[in-house]
Amino acid sequence: MITIGIIGYGYWGPNLVRNFFAAKDCCVKSVADSRLERLQQLGKIFPGISGVCDADDIIYDPDIDAVVIATPVSTHFQLAKESLLHGKHVLIEKPMASSVQEGEELIELAEQKNLLLMVDHTFLYTGAVEKMKQLVADKELGNIKYLDSTRINLGLFQPDINVLWDLAPHDISILNYIIKETPYSVNATGITHTNNEIENIAYLTINYNSGFIAHFNCSWTSPVKVRMMLIGGDQKMILYNDLEPTEKIKIYDTGYNHKSDEEKKRILVDYRTGDIHVPKLNTTEALLGMANDFVASIQEKRQPKSCYQIGLDVVRILEASNKSIKNNGCEVLLNTPNRVLKQKNYQVLRH
Amino acid sequence: MITIGIIGYGYWGPNLVRNFFAAKDCCVKSVADSRLERLQQLGKIFPGISGVCDADDIIYDPDIDAVVIATPVSTHFQLAKESLLHGKHVLIEKPMASSVQEGEELIELAEQKNLLLMVDHTFLYTGAVEKMKQLVADKELGNIKYLDSTRINLGLFQPDINVLWDLAPHDISILNYIIKETPYSVNATGITHTNNEIENIAYLTINYNSGFIAHFNCSWTSPVKVRMMLIGGDQKMILYNDLEPTEKIKIYDTGYNHKSDEEKKRILVDYRTGDIHVPKLNTTEALLGMANDFVASIQEKRQPKSCYQIGLDVVRILEASNKSIKNNGCEVLLNTPNRVLKQKNYQVLRH
Amino acid sequence: MITIGIIGYGYWGPNLVRNFFAAKDCCVKSVADSRLERLQQLGKIFPGISGVCDADDIIYDPDIDAVVIATPVSTHFQLAKESLLHGKHVLIEKPMASSVQEGEELIELAEQKNLLLMVDHTFLYTGAVEKMKQLVADKELGNIKYLDSTRINLGLFQPDINVLWDLAPHDISILNYIIKETPYSVNATGITHTNNEIENIAYLTINYNSGFIAHFNCSWTSPVKVRMMLIGGDQKMILYNDLEPTEKIKIYDTGYNHKSDEEKKRILVDYRTGDIHVPKLNTTEALLGMANDFVASIQEKRQPKSCYQIGLDVVRILEASNKSIKNNGCEVLLNTPNRVLKQKNYQVLRH
Amino acid sequence: MITIGIIGYGYWGPNLVRNFFAAKDCCVKSVADSRLERLQQLGKIFPGISGVCDADDIIYDPDIDAVVIATPVSTHFQLAKESLLHGKHVLIEKPMASSVQEGEELIELAEQKNLLLMVDHTFLYTGAVEKMKQLVADKELGNIKYLDSTRINLGLFQPDINVLWDLAPHDISILNYIIKETPYSVNATGITHTNNEIENIAYLTINYNSGFIAHFNCSWTSPVKVRMMLIGGDQKMILYNDLEPTEKIKIYDTGYNHKSDEEKKRILVDYRTGDIHVPKLNTTEALLGMANDFVASIQEKRQPKSCYQIGLDVVRILEASNKSIKNNGCEVLLNTPNRVLKQKNYQVLRH
Repeated sequence: MITIGIIGYGYWGPNLVRNFFAAKDCCVKSVADSRLERLQQLGKIFPGISGVCDADDIIYDPDIDAVVIATPVSTHFQLAKESLLHGKHVLIEKPMASSVQEGEELIELAEQKNLLLMVDHTFLYTGAVEKMKQLVADKELGNIKYLDSTRINLGLFQPDINVLWDLAPHDISILNYIIKETPYSVNATGITHTNNEIENIAYLTINYNSGFIAHFNCSWTSPVKVRMMLIGGDQKMILYNDLEPTEKIKIYDTGYNHKSDEEKKRILVDYRTGDIHVPKLNTTEALLGMANDFVASIQEKRQPKSCYQIGLDVVRILEASNKSIKNNGCEVLLNTPNRVLKQKNYQVLRH
Repeated sequence: MITIGIIGYGYWGPNLVRNFFAAKDCCVKSVADSRLERLQQLGKIFPGISGVCDADDIIYDPDIDAVVIATPVSTHFQLAKESLLHGKHVLIEKPMASSVQEGEELIELAEQKNLLLMVDHTFLYTGAVEKMKQLVADKELGNIKYLDSTRINLGLFQPDINVLWDLAPHDISILNYIIKETPYSVNATGITHTNNEIENIAYLTINYNSGFIAHFNCSWTSPVKVRMMLIGGDQKMILYNDLEPTEKIKIYDTGYNHKSDEEKKRILVDYRTGDIHVPKLNTTEALLGMANDFVASIQEKRQPKSCYQIGLDVVRILEASNKSIKNNGCEVLLNTPNRVLKQKNYQVLRH
Repeated sequence: MITIGIIGYGYWGPNLVRNFFAAKDCCVKSVADSRLERLQQLGKIFPGISGVCDADDIIYDPDIDAVVIATPVSTHFQLAKESLLHGKHVLIEKPMASSVQEGEELIELAEQKNLLLMVDHTFLYTGAVEKMKQLVADKELGNIKYLDSTRINLGLFQPDINVLWDLAPHDISILNYIIKETPYSVNATGITHTNNEIENIAYLTINYNSGFIAHFNCSWTSPVKVRMMLIGGDQKMILYNDLEPTEKIKIYDTGYNHKSDEEKKRILVDYRTGDIHVPKLNTTEALLGMANDFVASIQEKRQPKSCYQIGLDVVRILEASNKSIKNNGCEVLLNTPNRVLKQKNYQVLRH
Repeated sequence: MITIGIIGYGYWGPNLVRNFFAAKDCCVKSVADSRLERLQQLGKIFPGISGVCDADDIIYDPDIDAVVIATPVSTHFQLAKESLLHGKHVLIEKPMASSVQEGEELIELAEQKNLLLMVDHTFLYTGAVEKMKQLVADKELGNIKYLDSTRINLGLFQPDINVLWDLAPHDISILNYIIKETPYSVNATGITHTNNEIENIAYLTINYNSGFIAHFNCSWTSPVKVRMMLIGGDQKMILYNDLEPTEKIKIYDTGYNHKSDEEKKRILVDYRTGDIHVPKLNTTEALLGMANDFVASIQEKRQPKSCYQIGLDVVRILEASNKSIKNNGCEVLLNTPNRVLKQKNYQVLRH
């Protein structure tokens, strides 16, 4: 039985409490939030859970095995570091940290302490993403050529992070989970409409050596909500519409190949269009799957599906996107991930 | 009565013939295409129109007042130049030419010869675009903040132009028609999947000094057809879905404004969401409106709605997008349009 | 403060508990269900509520002011009668009872005892239905001509009631709430695919003297879920799609009128089509509104919005529909409601 | 080469001319319409076709082999009879005639004269209907349980026929083409909003001995256009949405079966839900397929796919629906079709 403390009871907090409540082999002991009205809300719905004002009441609590951090991004690093230093396993809401350096420091610390460090990329636990990963892994789509994602809505303007840091982690974590190739650079453009240097509309392109390309369109100022991702291979293509209640994934038996027309000195492209298939998906609540994976990973001393490497790579891309936006969209190369760091950690918590 | 010759009877040719057939004060005398089977098709449907193999049979025909050019982009300049030199008014399919220089040379020639030079940006003649222009002009949306367009489908790979040159002219012409501000730069990224340097997926951002931003997502390799444009103001926002049979335009009474929170040193954004309005649109066929405007502009010695300036500005942006893609997405400044040129021509064919 | 006991903790029970938990001026003391596993579920989520096996532990409990009955329809009458006899106010899940006679007996008893008897027609508390009622009451639609409802899905085959008794109460209660005219007859057809005389597909037409007509299409065996209602007037028409997340109501500025063509001896009908309006709706949870209305009606000694008259009229129509189906779809006249009964009760609990 | 004359150049006439123009082994010689402006329209688009004012100029023309009748229903019988008497093959727009008696008389006459008599039920030539027929014939759906069709829109009020005669022929012909079982009765209800006894909203149920049921919802007064048909089997179910541009047919791998629960004396129903399949359909224009089938049937002396038996059965059901509506929705038994008549004709024009 893993005893859990949750820091932060804002928008996402109640969902976390409810799902850790329902998860196996764990119990939620206390929840910290500095806002009294939030703790009152907690008490009304979950009378058995202790509400505390100070995160330290969780971090220093010897009964607590694992800390869940659901606070603004800028506080992730300090709270996670303190928790690790006090011997707690840590689950952080996405994105993991404000910078790659912070993320790497946390990973190193977790390894030293032999503790689990996990990032909550909830989408990896949906039936839709699981199906897409499997289709790509099974080469059903052929060679993957592009991923194109639109995630726009009328969203809360965040005071500390731009729209890419707020919305794109979902899509980038899906990308990193599904596509094995390592990208080499990004381009990003965006605009702020509030004079505070925080973009509320932004566009991100991620470049790969193989010719695969990924593009992300994020906005807090769209009157309509769109959650649409296309993944195209040369054999089949996927449309993933997360707003569809049941038909989230459509697999198009659509492909193309090209050959050179020697005579006319040009490329000819042949299309093939066919049936569409809409697979039945696992509909278990994703957040519950994430909670169960966190607890089980601690117990089994293994990496979870949403491993820190995906979390760190998401931050790496976001950090580069910031740099590109501030440099008028110019290409920013991605540093090679620190491989030694990765390897060492896998020894501790191997799959 | 304006006598018209049409050069090129490919995909778009039959639509042009049919609509000039139905337009007022004009008649189609002949159509040129080097492919015999195309001329046979023409003869079967329009037995009264003469089919010729050689464009010169149209350009040199003294009975013909105006030439419509519906051939590959790379041939636009030469055919239009010859036609102007032989005293014909000219309508060119979008995009106008392969380069700004070509476009400017054609405009200069048309001015010298006192002839009409028009580009067929058909969308400007749709009820949907007319409604959007009116809403923006009437300040119904408040201050315009962004335009975001997705135009993707399983499209014919063009052998001579990339997907932006093929698909984006529609959206850029709408942008230029609706938005009066002059952009200062573009960023574009893209990828080719056929090893011929011709991008089949590309993304374009157009930057403006006021903070307005425009973004275009174009692809020939999407399994689904999407034709969606968002135009957002701080008072209202428009969703334009061209695939909707009747509800093409939705006007969202959705706005936002921001203020500084002095105490917390941050920006607060307030939202307002309200009703949605779906206006009834004029459903006259756009191409017929374009054909009538071409003929009437010749007769009235005035600029058409789809004036050459819009056509040239589309090429200016496309040319810059090419440069940006080839330079890994870096920002490319747009040259200031040649104002003298513009002014002079307006004297000849004034509204 | 009204103390509430809930009988039945099946599919709908948890929603009732949760909303009475959140409602004003009331508390849930106990929940009865004969299935132990259901009581265990209850205890896990609501540790403060007492779970009891026997409905009598609620009916006989002197601390309980009001009983909520969420059990199979065939048990409604007996449980409600016992509750009233023991001085409890009563809320019954729809449909109110198995027959008009049962319903009338309950109403009479409630009047004698001076207690509130309410039926949970939750839809009357949605923003969509409230908006439609207002539009009809304000004569925005002109003269109302028809209501057409489709409510189909892959549904649980009920063992004791057919698909009309299961699904149509929602739509008939909306009809009765919005339309003031009293219908005079019904026709119904249907089919059972399980040899147990319980229709899983059924169609119902309700006839009115004014020429207004209402039609209901209900099925437990549709692979797709449809929740669509059309209400047509001669000035405007409404499309109500309950599955739309935000655009549930569309108001079409579409009308028609007719005149006689004396010369040709026939009727001419003129159409008018115009804009579409999508009003912003109140999005408060309907069940919470229902719970609050129940409690407030007890306290204020008034009839709730979902009054017993609507509940009884729903049963009256369902009862007649049964008779029509069993008589091969023949027309079944509706008895005039017992007006004396109605009047008397209004004196006790007047609006 | 079959020479064709077309009587009636109203709404549907231009489509017929265009497709017989494009069909194989036939030519359109003349088109008759009493309205001069219609003949002028014809002349503008089809200069090679002779426009005549009087149907007799077609019926008496010795050069014409086959007559296409596209006039109001009340005139079908007389025009078809005259045409047959003058030795012409006949194609009649749906519905075939105003009564079963008229239809049978035409069939008898066609047999005597050894001429083809065909009804234009265009939908039978769509890829969607062909696919559905094949799926049912191949027992892919298991045992067919129901067909439910909604065909509503803002439609032209017809002066001589009600909405069922106008719209339902499409759906009933599809039903008769796909389902082999003979129905035994119908129920229909409806309403007129123009005081001329011609229903503009009507509902039709068709009953079968096996427990299969078909239901049709037709309206000229819906603000939205709906073209939706469900066909449910116990193994799979089909959703046919004719307004979808490409995904017209969705096949749901959804089924159910039932068993008796001896202990609890009730029926238990098990569901199975699975993937959805969207087949690629033949997209050839249906009307062209119909035209080609008409010509080929004459040449090959065989019955067309849209044979007169389907046409007559459609009228049989419509006639019975009228009787049911006028008798307040009571069940009307369908007469057994005249089998001798059928048999005889098949000898002449056998498949």
